[in-house]
Amino acid sequence: MSQVDKQLDDIRAEIEQEVPSGISITEVAYEGPELVVYTRDPKTFASNGDLIRRLASKLRKRITVRPDPSELSEPSDAKATIENIIPEDAGVTDLDFHHDTGEVVVEAQKPGMVIGRHGSTLREITQEVGWTPEVVRTPPIESSTVKNVRNFLKQERDDRRDILERIGRQIHREEMSDDEWVRITTLGCCREVGRAAFILSTPETRVLIDCGDKPGAEDEVPYLQVPEALGSGPSSLDAVVLTHAHLDHSALIPLLFKYGYDGPIYCTEPTRDLMGLLTLDYLDVASKEGRTPPYESEMVREAIKHTIPLEYGDVTDIAPDIKLTLHNSGHILGSAISHFHIGDGLYNVAFSGDIHYDDTRLFNGAVNEFPRVETLVLESTYGGRNDYQTDQADSERKLKEVISDTIERDGKVLIPAFAVGRSQEIMLVLEEAMREGDIPEVPVHLDGMIWEATAIHTTYPEYLRDDLRDRIFHDDQNPFLADQFNHIDGGEEERQEVADGGPCIVLSTSGMVEGGPIMSWLRHVGGQDEGTMVFVGYQAQGTMGRRIQNGWDEIPVNDGGGRADTLSLNMDVETVDGFSGHADRQGLENFVRTMNPRPEKVLCVHGDESSTQDLSSALYHEFNMRTFAPKNLETFRFV
Amino acid sequence: MSQVDKQLDDIRAEIEQEVPSGISITEVAYEGPELVVYTRDPKTFASNGDLIRRLASKLRKRITVRPDPSELSEPSDAKATIENIIPEDAGVTDLDFHHDTGEVVVEAQKPGMVIGRHGSTLREITQEVGWTPEVVRTPPIESSTVKNVRNFLKQERDDRRDILERIGRQIHREEMSDDEWVRITTLGCCREVGRAAFILSTPETRVLIDCGDKPGAEDEVPYLQVPEALGSGPSSLDAVVLTHAHLDHSALIPLLFKYGYDGPIYCTEPTRDLMGLLTLDYLDVASKEGRTPPYESEMVREAIKHTIPLEYGDVTDIAPDIKLTLHNSGHILGSAISHFHIGDGLYNVAFSGDIHYDDTRLFNGAVNEFPRVETLVLESTYGGRNDYQTDQADSERKLKEVISDTIERDGKVLIPAFAVGRSQEIMLVLEEAMREGDIPEVPVHLDGMIWEATAIHTTYPEYLRDDLRDRIFHDDQNPFLADQFNHIDGGEEERQEVADGGPCIVLSTSGMVEGGPIMSWLRHVGGQDEGTMVFVGYQAQGTMGRRIQNGWDEIPVNDGGGRADTLSLNMDVETVDGFSGHADRQGLENFVRTMNPRPEKVLCVHGDESSTQDLSSALYHEFNMRTFAPKNLETFRFV
Repeated sequence: MSQVDKQLDDIRAEIEQEVPSGISITEVAYEGPELVVYTRDPKTFASNGDLIRRLASKLRKRITVRPDPSELSEPSDAKATIENIIPEDAGVTDLDFHHDTGEVVVEAQKPGMVIGRHGSTLREITQEVGWTPEVVRTPPIESSTVKNVRNFLKQERDDRRDILERIGRQIHREEMSDDEWVRITTLGCCREVGRAAFILSTPETRVLIDCGDKPGAEDEVPYLQVPEALGSGPSSLDAVVLTHAHLDHSALIPLLFKYGYDGPIYCTEPTRDLMGLLTLDYLDVASKEGRTPPYESEMVREAIKHTIPLEYGDVTDIAPDIKLTLHNSGHILGSAISHFHIGDGLYNVAFSGDIHYDDTRLFNGAVNEFPRVETLVLESTYGGRNDYQTDQADSERKLKEVISDTIERDGKVLIPAFAVGRSQEIMLVLEEAMREGDIPEVPVHLDGMIWEATAIHTTYPEYLRDDLRDRIFHDDQNPFLADQFNHIDGGEEERQEVADGGPCIVLSTSGMVEGGPIMSWLRHVGGQDEGTMVFVGYQAQGTMGRRIQNGWDEIPVNDGGGRADTLSLNMDVETVDGFSGHADRQGLENFVRTMNPRPEKVLCVHGDESSTQDLSSALYHEFNMRTFAPKNLETFRFV
Repeated sequence: MSQVDKQLDDIRAEIEQEVPSGISITEVAYEGPELVVYTRDPKTFASNGDLIRRLASKLRKRITVRPDPSELSEPSDAKATIENIIPEDAGVTDLDFHHDTGEVVVEAQKPGMVIGRHGSTLREITQEVGWTPEVVRTPPIESSTVKNVRNFLKQERDDRRDILERIGRQIHREEMSDDEWVRITTLGCCREVGRAAFILSTPETRVLIDCGDKPGAEDEVPYLQVPEALGSGPSSLDAVVLTHAHLDHSALIPLLFKYGYDGPIYCTEPTRDLMGLLTLDYLDVASKEGRTPPYESEMVREAIKHTIPLEYGDVTDIAPDIKLTLHNSGHILGSAISHFHIGDGLYNVAFSGDIHYDDTRLFNGAVNEFPRVETLVLESTYGGRNDYQTDQADSERKLKEVISDTIERDGKVLIPAFAVGRSQEIMLVLEEAMREGDIPEVPVHLDGMIWEATAIHTTYPEYLRDDLRDRIFHDDQNPFLADQFNHIDGGEEERQEVADGGPCIVLSTSGMVEGGPIMSWLRHVGGQDEGTMVFVGYQAQGTMGRRIQNGWDEIPVNDGGGRADTLSLNMDVETVDGFSGHADRQGLENFVRTMNPRPEKVLCVHGDESSTQDLSSALYHEFNMRTFAPKNLETFRFV
C-alpha cells in the first residue's frame, strides 16, 4: 500500500470518528489540492452546517463532500426540483449534471441567489436531490472565451478527473528530504521587462512562477533549458503558478506542455480564461506575421485542462511542503500576488507579479498584508528615480477636455488601447463622464479583442473593485452594459458607417498601432482633420504608435485589397498618461512602506537595469532591508 | 561525417601543408585534450626541432607526434639502442614498450639526463628507434602508491586509450549555444570548512571543481543531488577539476563514478597519486570504524583511470569554450589554483583551492599572476579578523628548543602529524637543524602513512620549492634521504625497540591522535616522564589531541590485544603552531593585494561564517572590489 493510500485510510478513520453516527463515508480521495469525501448521506452531511468546516480545520485540508453515486436522483426529476428551489429571479440559464462527481453545474445570472444566505439554498438543493450544486455566473455579456473554456472543460471532464487525482496524490506524497533550504532561481525578467519566470525550490519541491515572452525580442525567452528549470526533465517541476495573463508572464505556459510538463497550473479563474484568449491570439499574430508559433493551439487547451483555479485568499497545499495563497495585485483582472508558505513555519516568499498600489476605477489596490513574509520579489517597471506618473484625476480631466473639444467641432476620437485592463478603465471613465454630463453623450465603439476582454471582466465581477462590484451585484447598473457602448462586429462595412456618421469615440486594438483593427480605423478616419487620436498607454520604441506621437503624419498602410499605400494622418494627436496598470516609483515605495509585516529581503525584478538598481538602492536606504537587483540565471538561498 | 571528424580532416590538411615534403602523416586524432599526429617519418619530424611548436601555435592545440606503428623497430633491438644512447649515469631502471601509442616509458633516477639538453637525447632516441620516449622518475624512495598507480595505468592502457579518445572528441565538439553566460554554483564549503564543491557552468559546459567530505560531519556531503550538479544526470558534467588531494576536497571524487560519471578528472600528477593514497585510506578508516564506505575501492581505480594529469602552466582545452591552467598554490604537494579562461576572451575565473601565500620550506608560495582574472574564489580558513599565525622562524626556534631540552634529559619527542605536507615540513626543519648542529643528531622515526607520503614527495621533486628541488636535482642531497630518517616498518616489535632505546624523535599519524600508530606510541612511550609530546598542527574540537592539549593525562587506549585500558601520560605536552599549510589573514590579504591583475569580484569560501564574512568585508573596504560570502546552493552569474 502506498504512503498516500495509507494516509487516506488514516484520514477516513479520523472523519468517521468525527461525523455523527448515521452518516456513512463510502470513499475519501484527493482531487488536486482538495480532499473529496463521498457519502451515502449527503443530506444529513449538508444539514450539519458546521461539520465540513470542523473537518477542514481538524485535518488542515480543503474538503469537498459529494454524494455517493448511488444516492443521486434521476437528472430529469432533480431538474424539476432544483428549478423549484431556486428563486426565479436568480435567472438560471443552464443546469448540467455530472454523474462522475455528483455535481450539477448551475449557470445563473445572479449566483448569489442560487447560493442563498450562507449557502442555505445550496444545502437545500443537496438535501432534496442528492446532487452537489456548483454555481457559475451567466456572463452578462456573452464571452465566447468563457463559453469555450467551460464547454471544453465539460467535455474533458473524465480526463481532468484523472489529472486532478494524480496531482492530488503528488501534492500529498510523503516528504523525502531531511534537509531544509529555500531557493529562488531567476530565469527571466531580471534587469529587463519581459520573459518573467522564476523557480522556487526546496529539497522536496520545484515550482515555476510565470513563463512569459519578451515583447519585441523574439529570441529572448526564459532560460527554461538550464538544469534548475526543465533541464532535468519537465516532470521535475511540481507546479506552475501564473500571476496574471499578460503575455510577458503567460505566453510560454502552453510551451511547457509541449516539452512534456503534465502538472498543475495555479491561477485565478479569470487569469485562466484571459490566458486562453491572449495565448491563442499570440499564436494567431505569430502565424499572420509569418513566424513559426512556438506551440500549437492544442497546447493552450492542455494548459487550460491542467489549470486549478484558486480564489484570492484560499490557502492551498500545492506540495508536501508548500502552501500557496493568491492575493489581489490590482494590475489586471485576476492578477495575483503569489504568497508561498514553505515548510511548517520555515519561510515565506511573496512574488508581486505586476502590481498597482492605489485603487483604480477597475480594481482595488494591491494587497500588502500577509501572515508572514520574509522575502518579497517585487516588480520594478517604474522603479527608476524619476518614474513618477501623472495623477489619474488630472489625466482624466485632460482626456475629457480633449474629447469635449473634438466632439464640439464634430470630430471623432480614436483611442488605440490594450484589450485587457486599460480599455475597461477608459470605458469606466467615459461612462461616468457621460452619465455626469462632463462630456456629451456619443457612441463609444469597441473594436478588436476589447469587447471580448470586457465580456470576461463582466463574467467575474467579484474580481473588480468593491464599489464597482457592488453596482454590478446590487444595483443592476453594470457600467459596461451602458447603452453608448457598441461592439463593432460588422467588419469593414460597420466601420465605414461609423466613419461616415457623426461624432463618436472609438477604442481599438492594437494598443501600440502595430496591426489589428486600429489600422483599419486609421484608413477610415485618419484623414478627418476635425478628429483626434489619443494615446492612453505606453508606446514602446520602434512602434508605429511611438512614431505618430513623434509627429509622423504619413502612415504606411495596406488597403483592404492588400496593396501597400500611404495615408495622411490629419487628426490631432494627443497623449494622456496616468492610466498605467503599474505602480509608479511612489506606489512601489508605498507598497513596501505599508507592507505588513515588512519583509527582510527584497529582490527587485521586472524593470530595466537602472530601474531595478534605483529601486533596490532606494529601498535599502529608506527601510534598511537587504535588497538585490538580480541578474537572470542567479540562485538565491534564503534558509 | 560528424563535425569532429570534419574538423580533424581540416586539421590534417593544415598540417600536411605545413610540414616539409617528405613527411607523411598517416593519422590525426584527439586523445584527451591533446592532438596526436601519427607519421611514417618520426625521425624527420623529430629532426625539425621547431616544427611541433610551430604547429601547436598555429592550430592552438597541444600536439603530440607519434610514429605510425609500421615504423617501430622491434622492442628487443630498440632496447639495446636506447640503452646505448642514454648515459649510464641517468640510472635507467626500466624500459616499457607500448605498441598502441608507439611510446617507450623510460624510468630513470635522473630524468634530466634522459631528456638531454632541450630534449636532444629524446629526439635522438626517436630518430634511432622510431619509438617516442616518455620519461618518468624512478622514485628515490620506493612508493608503493606510485608503483601501484603506474602498474594499474599500464594494465588499463587499452581502456584508457578509449576513454581519452572519447574525452578528446567531447572536448573538441561543436559549440551548440549562441548564448553567453558564466555562472558559479556553490555545492559546499561555503560558510564552513569541508565538502568543497563548485559548479562552473556556461550554456555549453558544466565543470565540477573539487568534491570533498566534511571532517567530523559524516552526513554533510556536497549538494550533488541538485539539478545544477548531477540532478540532470552525471553525463551532464563535462569535467571534474581537483585542486588538491586533501579529503575535504577529494574524498567524494570516486563517488562520482559510482553515480555514473564517466568523464575526465584534471589535476596534477602528485594530486592523482595522493588522492589514490588518501581515498583508499578513507575507505579503510570508514570500514574499521564500522561505517559503510560510500563507495568501493574499485571506484578509486576508476577515478585514477579517468585522470588527465596536467603540469603547472599548461593551458589545456577541457571543453569547446573553456581552457584550464593549473598554478602552484603552495599548500601541499601538487596543490593547484585552477584558472579557467572562458570563451574567446569572454571571462576568467580562478579557484584558489587551499593556498599558502609565503614560501614554506617545502613549497614556493602561491602563484598570483595570471593573464586575466575577473573573479577569484578564495579560501578563507584563516580569514577571521584575528587569524594571525606565529612566524615560522619563531615556531622553528621553539620546536628546536623543546627538542634540545628533551634530548638533553635523555627523553623522546613524540610528534603527532598529518601524513601529507606537515610531516615533510617538519622533516626538513629537523634535517637542517641536525645538519647545522642546532639540535643533537638523533634518529627520527616515521610511522604511519608519513613514509609513503614522503616517498610520493620525492617522486615529484619538480613540485617542491625551487631550492629544495635544486638540491634534489643537482646536488644529490635529497634531505628526505638523510640518514637519521627511519621508516618504522617492523610493527610493534620495532616500536618497542625504539621505546627501550635512547633519545629520538617520532613523527606519527594520526595528526589529531584519533587512531593510527600514534596510539601505539602513546602506550610505548607515553609513560616516560622525561619525554615530550609536541603538537605542530591544528587540533579540532572533540579530538583526543585537543583533550591532551587541554591537560588530560589519563588516556583511554586499546592494548594490542583489543582490551580497553587507560594509560597515564607522563610526558610534557607542548604546542608549536606556525606550521600551517594555509595562508593566515595577512597572507590572504597579501595574496589579493599583490595579485596581478586584481580581480573585480571575490567570493570568500572555505572558512566558517565569521571568517568568510570578515575577509569579505575587509577585502571590500581595502581594495574596493565586489566581495561576497556565499551560502551553499547559491548561483552567481558573471557575464
